[in-house]
Amino acid sequence: MAKIAIGSSDEPVQPDCIRAAVAELILTFLFVFAGVGAAMAAAKMVGGGGIAGLTAVAVAHALVVAVMISAGLHISGGHLNPAVTLGLLVGGHISIIRSIIYVVAQLLGSSLACLLLKYLTGGLDTPVHTLAAGMDAIQGLIMEIVLTFSLLFTVYGTIVDPKKIVPPGLGPLLVGLVVGANILAGGPFSGASMNPARSFGPALAIWDWTDHWVYWVGPLIGGALAGLVYDNFFIIESTHDPLPTGEEGY
Amino acid sequence: MAKIAIGSSDEPVQPDCIRAAVAELILTFLFVFAGVGAAMAAAKMVGGGGIAGLTAVAVAHALVVAVMISAGLHISGGHLNPAVTLGLLVGGHISIIRSIIYVVAQLLGSSLACLLLKYLTGGLDTPVHTLAAGMDAIQGLIMEIVLTFSLLFTVYGTIVDPKKIVPPGLGPLLVGLVVGANILAGGPFSGASMNPARSFGPALAIWDWTDHWVYWVGPLIGGALAGLVYDNFFIIESTHDPLPTGEEGY
Amino acid sequence: MAKIAIGSSDEPVQPDCIRAAVAELILTFLFVFAGVGAAMAAAKMVGGGGIAGLTAVAVAHALVVAVMISAGLHISGGHLNPAVTLGLLVGGHISIIRSIIYVVAQLLGSSLACLLLKYLTGGLDTPVHTLAAGMDAIQGLIMEIVLTFSLLFTVYGTIVDPKKIVPPGLGPLLVGLVVGANILAGGPFSGASMNPARSFGPALAIWDWTDHWVYWVGPLIGGALAGLVYDNFFIIESTHDPLPTGEEGY
Amino acid sequence: MAKIAIGSSDEPVQPDCIRAAVAELILTFLFVFAGVGAAMAAAKMVGGGGIAGLTAVAVAHALVVAVMISAGLHISGGHLNPAVTLGLLVGGHISIIRSIIYVVAQLLGSSLACLLLKYLTGGLDTPVHTLAAGMDAIQGLIMEIVLTFSLLFTVYGTIVDPKKIVPPGLGPLLVGLVVGANILAGGPFSGASMNPARSFGPALAIWDWTDHWVYWVGPLIGGALAGLVYDNFFIIESTHDPLPTGEEGY
Repeated sequence: MAKIAIGSSDEPVQPDCIRAAVAELILTFLFVFAGVGAAMAAAKMVGGGGIAGLTAVAVAHALVVAVMISAGLHISGGHLNPAVTLGLLVGGHISIIRSIIYVVAQLLGSSLACLLLKYLTGGLDTPVHTLAAGMDAIQGLIMEIVLTFSLLFTVYGTIVDPKKIVPPGLGPLLVGLVVGANILAGGPFSGASMNPARSFGPALAIWDWTDHWVYWVGPLIGGALAGLVYDNFFIIESTHDPLPTGEEGY
Repeated sequence: MAKIAIGSSDEPVQPDCIRAAVAELILTFLFVFAGVGAAMAAAKMVGGGGIAGLTAVAVAHALVVAVMISAGLHISGGHLNPAVTLGLLVGGHISIIRSIIYVVAQLLGSSLACLLLKYLTGGLDTPVHTLAAGMDAIQGLIMEIVLTFSLLFTVYGTIVDPKKIVPPGLGPLLVGLVVGANILAGGPFSGASMNPARSFGPALAIWDWTDHWVYWVGPLIGGALAGLVYDNFFIIESTHDPLPTGEEGY
Repeated sequence: MAKIAIGSSDEPVQPDCIRAAVAELILTFLFVFAGVGAAMAAAKMVGGGGIAGLTAVAVAHALVVAVMISAGLHISGGHLNPAVTLGLLVGGHISIIRSIIYVVAQLLGSSLACLLLKYLTGGLDTPVHTLAAGMDAIQGLIMEIVLTFSLLFTVYGTIVDPKKIVPPGLGPLLVGLVVGANILAGGPFSGASMNPARSFGPALAIWDWTDHWVYWVGPLIGGALAGLVYDNFFIIESTHDPLPTGEEGY
Repeated sequence: MAKIAIGSSDEPVQPDCIRAAVAELILTFLFVFAGVGAAMAAAKMVGGGGIAGLTAVAVAHALVVAVMISAGLHISGGHLNPAVTLGLLVGGHISIIRSIIYVVAQLLGSSLACLLLKYLTGGLDTPVHTLAAGMDAIQGLIMEIVLTFSLLFTVYGTIVDPKKIVPPGLGPLLVGLVVGANILAGGPFSGASMNPARSFGPALAIWDWTDHWVYWVGPLIGGALAGLVYDNFFIIESTHDPLPTGEEGY
């Protein structure tokens, strides 16, 4: 069981933490600007409401998530997402105080991006995450839990785990790719948010909070669950074996 | 000729093997959830039955296969696929007992993912692999053999071969990419399963076993064939030459 | 604050600088040939005017930008873009004289590519960047500033910053990916040029300079801004700490 | 100027050369099977004749080229393409005798793949490369020259050049990506073959040699040109400077 630190009370004024918080704000802003922007672009274009629009939106998210985590990995860890922050918190990889600072920065970045997009497009709606017709809240909640579990499992298996085989710095690309795949699967059902900050900005910009709680509760449960499972079951404290285990698979 | 090990009888109770089996279950679950989920999403959306739908499904598979192998490479080898397990077994890279455990975990993961998808989407059909109209079983079988040969050749050339040039940990990404390319080619003909576990879950969930044997026999033959060819012809036991051979190509 | 060097007066005749300038010309030529070519291909084909066309153009740009930066990184830095050159200039990573030489080479490469494309396609129009209907110059300018800020932030975070975690040589791939994501978001609004040279060639080839200044002013402001912000706020001069900071995020 | 070797007369019977030739045959077979297969899949599906079909075909080629070069890089160099072989020959990176053996293997692999595809699909046509309506041979030739120049420039800049910055083994992925971008640009005009072997198989399978010479002459000129330019102008023999030059770009 990982030990979770509260964090020191002067953390918010430490240069390193301020720098990380500003990075989270900028990175989340740039991620949401491209992600929500792509959704608005699809809504505007011929064919954007069908499978080709879903593909465009999924690809945009995959690429920009991969890039923004990569660009900020060394500054803030490149979370961009409260569910990622919580998933790392439960594994003891970030303190509680810093987590709160990160989440505030993420929400701020997402909100600014969506308000700016609304202005730049002459008042077009920022599309909000909602459940598809015929899908109830439990179904939506479970889908968001599964998809976010998938996201955090990837974060742990390709970035956090010291025994990972993927080279340092390739993990963020893979995290972007799983976001893309999951949007292609869950987009037309639950919306495939996996990220409360990503859902918050558009809802704020057009003040539409329909189903909004689903995109907090689902991702946070999924993220925390993946963190707990991976950290307690798959991360091995080896004092005598510096080599990856399980290599028998190859 | 590689020496195939049966494996020790207490392997199923060793922590390392249990951890690997659970990883195979989780990874296959997450892979099938996104892969079959994308097929269901395409089926639901405008344009999803045409080339744009095929592209969306192929991209989703490419991305999630790349990610899940990467995330589990150090735990279980990230097989996710009985044809991969068999292809590695014939090369002596996994024991028989462990192979059986892996395949059970893969089938379980795929089945759970498909049953859950059916529930979450309010009872939508999980699309099963079947042969296209006008394609007979021999044609379908050969296509699955070729596509799975391609998959395992990639696994050997980019992950298993100690003389590979691609950096450790990049192989899984490439394995995902070849799955995507092969689906774009074989999808409208044989379905391009390349994976009995991937075919098993959807068939179980809607209890439709049409042509199902093709997706066991084809991939298993293709996988085993690639393993035998690569392992016996291309892996070089060099006691005196630690450098890659064939570099004259550049 | 970075110290910007003017550069030595004999730089234009140094073999290294000549080689770099020729590389910029060739790389920008090949990038624009594929990028503008893809836009012309989309314009010619069924469905090319909708979301599927936008996706094709965005993917083409993502791939070719990634490749051409990679191929020329060791020769010229692989800028291909006056906004990148300016963004690096303000951080002190290139001299003023060399910057001017680069920009001339980039404009020349782009112009030659567009003139050749016009000839090869029997006189088809090279599509120019313009503001979408209903979008005013300020909105377009701000969008280009944001998108180019995103591009240069990625250049700094994944290539320039000595504390970056992504492996050397992976940065160019990520820069390509962010270009793709940003086109998917901004394409139907401001055109998502992010690059005065990319906008210059098509405008020259068909002599249409509508809104052209937007694609100089916007990208140059966005690029310079990102360079100044990143270089002064996120690049840390550490004399005593060779390890990446901010790793607490994980 | 690179020194081109004829090669020893017993090369064809050396185990290493035989292994490389078989690898070229298998890799080209698998590449063409997926590439031409994707073109046949697109031709069969709704929307496959428009921009979405072009995108599917371009993505399939990008992925499978990236994978097959990666899988065979350490065995044969992963050429898959007579234009690549010639481009490396003019730079002195492969002998004449071995080049001839490679090209025969490539043509054989492509032919077998296309004949098998024709059989497996119940006699569907394998789509051949031809010039678009309104495009004359000179225009087609120049386009193939430019696109193949782009391909070989990438091979040199990301794989061959000892001073490249991209990590060893990432080059093949980038070569795949540039093939994808170039198909998105040139597909609807010259067909964007860039590879005589890729064009040969489909032409043989349906015995349609319209414009076929264009896809030999264009790619071979473009490949050789890029090899000569890169090898003589950009590869620097440094006896005193082991560091990459031109780093001032960053």
